[in-house]
Amino acid sequence: MRKEVDVLSIKKFGKKLRQIRVSKGISMELLASLTSFEYSQISRIELGQINTSIDAVFKLAKALNIEPKELFDFEK
Amino acid sequence: MRKEVDVLSIKKFGKKLRQIRVSKGISMELLASLTSFEYSQISRIELGQINTSIDAVFKLAKALNIEPKELFDFEK
Repeated sequence: MRKEVDVLSIKKFGKKLRQIRVSKGISMELLASLTSFEYSQISRIELGQINTSIDAVFKLAKALNIEPKELFDFEK
Repeated sequence: MRKEVDVLSIKKFGKKLRQIRVSKGISMELLASLTSFEYSQISRIELGQINTSIDAVFKLAKALNIEPKELFDFEK
């Protein structure tokens, strides 16, 4: 398996995060404050520019009031 | 939300990874070679000692032939 970061998958995750955030009417500013992340960090995660961590996945899910696995549910 | 890494959640992820790996009869050595990760990296991820990345989640899921979301399915 390639050692480099799979950018397509990272972008897929970011898109899913944005889709859920927007569907809940939560702004990037609000999500940033709820997670204690920087606004720019949220933005770069959504754009697939950061290979974020599983801890961030748990914190984002908690802030969005969803199960972490929903952030990886690409069939919906 | 606390800035520190949520160690309990990281350990939960590691336990789930081990559960799925073992249920498929895949050794840590084999998973290491399938993902091009170091054996010690697999071991530390399973022990919740590493706050691994979402790219690793995608690579681990691919190597285990499962959907990434299954690694976050803690109800099963």
